[in-house]
Amino acid sequence: MPHLSQRASFIPASPIRKLAPYAEAAKAAGKHIYHLNIGQPDLETPKTYWEAIRQGESKVLAYGSSAGEKPLRLAISDYYKRIGIEMPADHILITTGASEALNFIFSVCLDPGDQIIVPEPFYANYHSYAAFMYTQVQPIGTDIDNHFALPPVEAFEAAIQPRTKAIMICNPNNPTGVMYGKEELEGLLALAKKYGLYLIADEVYREFSYADFPHHSCLQLEGGEEHVIVIDSISKRFSACGARVGCLLTHNQEILDAVLRLAQSRLCPPTLGQIGAEALYRLPVSYFEEVSAEYLKRRNTLVSLLRDIPGVMVPEVNGAFYAMVKLPVENSEDFCRWMLEEFSYENSTVMMAPGSGFYINPRKGKNEVRIAYVLKEEDLKKAIKCLAEGLRAYESRNKAHIPA
Amino acid sequence: MPHLSQRASFIPASPIRKLAPYAEAAKAAGKHIYHLNIGQPDLETPKTYWEAIRQGESKVLAYGSSAGEKPLRLAISDYYKRIGIEMPADHILITTGASEALNFIFSVCLDPGDQIIVPEPFYANYHSYAAFMYTQVQPIGTDIDNHFALPPVEAFEAAIQPRTKAIMICNPNNPTGVMYGKEELEGLLALAKKYGLYLIADEVYREFSYADFPHHSCLQLEGGEEHVIVIDSISKRFSACGARVGCLLTHNQEILDAVLRLAQSRLCPPTLGQIGAEALYRLPVSYFEEVSAEYLKRRNTLVSLLRDIPGVMVPEVNGAFYAMVKLPVENSEDFCRWMLEEFSYENSTVMMAPGSGFYINPRKGKNEVRIAYVLKEEDLKKAIKCLAEGLRAYESRNKAHIPA
Repeated sequence: MPHLSQRASFIPASPIRKLAPYAEAAKAAGKHIYHLNIGQPDLETPKTYWEAIRQGESKVLAYGSSAGEKPLRLAISDYYKRIGIEMPADHILITTGASEALNFIFSVCLDPGDQIIVPEPFYANYHSYAAFMYTQVQPIGTDIDNHFALPPVEAFEAAIQPRTKAIMICNPNNPTGVMYGKEELEGLLALAKKYGLYLIADEVYREFSYADFPHHSCLQLEGGEEHVIVIDSISKRFSACGARVGCLLTHNQEILDAVLRLAQSRLCPPTLGQIGAEALYRLPVSYFEEVSAEYLKRRNTLVSLLRDIPGVMVPEVNGAFYAMVKLPVENSEDFCRWMLEEFSYENSTVMMAPGSGFYINPRKGKNEVRIAYVLKEEDLKKAIKCLAEGLRAYESRNKAHIPA
Repeated sequence: MPHLSQRASFIPASPIRKLAPYAEAAKAAGKHIYHLNIGQPDLETPKTYWEAIRQGESKVLAYGSSAGEKPLRLAISDYYKRIGIEMPADHILITTGASEALNFIFSVCLDPGDQIIVPEPFYANYHSYAAFMYTQVQPIGTDIDNHFALPPVEAFEAAIQPRTKAIMICNPNNPTGVMYGKEELEGLLALAKKYGLYLIADEVYREFSYADFPHHSCLQLEGGEEHVIVIDSISKRFSACGARVGCLLTHNQEILDAVLRLAQSRLCPPTLGQIGAEALYRLPVSYFEEVSAEYLKRRNTLVSLLRDIPGVMVPEVNGAFYAMVKLPVENSEDFCRWMLEEFSYENSTVMMAPGSGFYINPRKGKNEVRIAYVLKEEDLKKAIKCLAEGLRAYESRNKAHIPA
């Protein structure tokens, strides 16, 4: 009998997916589920996407360019120019979603045994791709009681090991909703330069920023040309998750060349998605203003309703569309499962992502959940009401279980 | 300064791409190029693809299932049933092109240092993905003078090393156009069972078969359940290369589980391509009959015209849409470059893939080229005429260069 690679055993089962069977059973039983568990926006994909695809019908749906279609790369370059960043089209490589960009970057930056420093909690797939490369994520702890603030640069410096190759951040952050400021980023770049590290920034949530300072891209950092690599995507920005169109941006020509060789192995990203994406990137700035205003409203609603629930702790949330929240439970994974399996309120329940899935340390995040506020206000209100009722029922159930 | 991973240096630059700058220059100079260099069919993508996509417009282009959309998996299962193979939908995982299937399979089967046996010449990307995994392809030589016939099973057995994990074949074969028979496949499976190896079969050209025996899928081999993994794709079958929809098929549940965990990291394959692919897989068998008849005609034209050129040797070609051909030149890479850079006939030239790109041994394939007969007969005739003129001119140029 043949046996799987060791690598296959390194790849962690997605923590969010663990709950999927319970969600399916709940749905099969006719229960309505408010999905606060994944970053799937409910906003409509702009109509221009579909129009472009209709106009893009061709006789032969041929292979495209491995680097991505030139018109899309130019449209992305223009978009960056509008937000004040000079990115020539040939410093942009189109990828099949941000996931592929992540895969490519880790591939050309990391060898087995290398390490990458990431503030924790973090997007679980960073860990998956790192494991896939036989490399380790070195978590730098951030704390809910300190609003998940970025640790001082000294903490990063202390974590650097001989095999550390990169510092990676997500800004605005999934899962915490925190946004890092210009000075913090400058500190990280200075460190990257001092130790010869890459600075990788996942900025797919760039427009979802509600802080009292503007979002600062790592691409704007002075002197970062050789160090900074940015991951981007249309999935969240334009509510087009199923298109699978992302990109990778850097001024480092060595990285661009190496990634292109890798990209050639997979031939090209999906053609239609790129045609649609080009149209999306031509949308006026007002589009983002509307979207951002909508999410700001949702964030305000979420935070104020959650803070009304006894025992719930909500840190500051000023970016992306997630909040990591402390619940008055001992084991949020058990609670999330219970919500799906045993609880309902007006025949509905709420699905959330257990916090532990965003930490490497299995003891951390046990009483936290990540809430994605990707539902319209009305639904969000009902979902939070449902969560409040669930917490109450869960608590009394636990009390009832206390042995006499 | 940060430095790239070693892996980045392992990934070979695509041999076909090396000629791309010369092709671009030729085009810029107004020369017409007959593209016999890549497997990009000129056949129209069936209209049903575009109709399905128009009907598939949705309000929110959301993430799909990581395993692929259920309707597509069912349609593929039905297609397999029509060709006599029982493949339940949950033994089929949708991938972003066959490339991703290849990447996933190598990932869950191979660790660094492992080896995989492949008859040579072979599709260059097998080497790219193997290198990416820090693994080696062990080539088993096949010979143009023997029509690239599969070596006897003893040759495979002799090549097995302690770290050999799999035997991989492409059937019908890219680049040679050879098709392997049932008994040959049974021999490979017996070997795989004896040594606990995987048997990986790339069958994306299944319908392009012109042999006097029917194509036999490795999925039809008795007792292969735990060993056989098949790679498939809509790119060639339906002339839909830009859709990026492929799949991976196996009855081995351990492989399916491991690949699904990997697949979850990249979230999902492109949604629209899958909607179109479902419609394609619902096409009647008559579609393949027409396509296959068209390619048979092209193959006959190609082979007879090439055999009329002095010094050109064309082996038997009974599958896929490629021929590996021996030319009366010493260095086909130089010749292919010269055709683009210096030659034209009626303001046209021909682009081919130098044979050496399909061999690991740098001394092999030096006087061979791979010709993809993906053009309609009329163009194919002009292209071969142009090639014949090119060979003549190249020879007299070389003679003229002989020092007195």
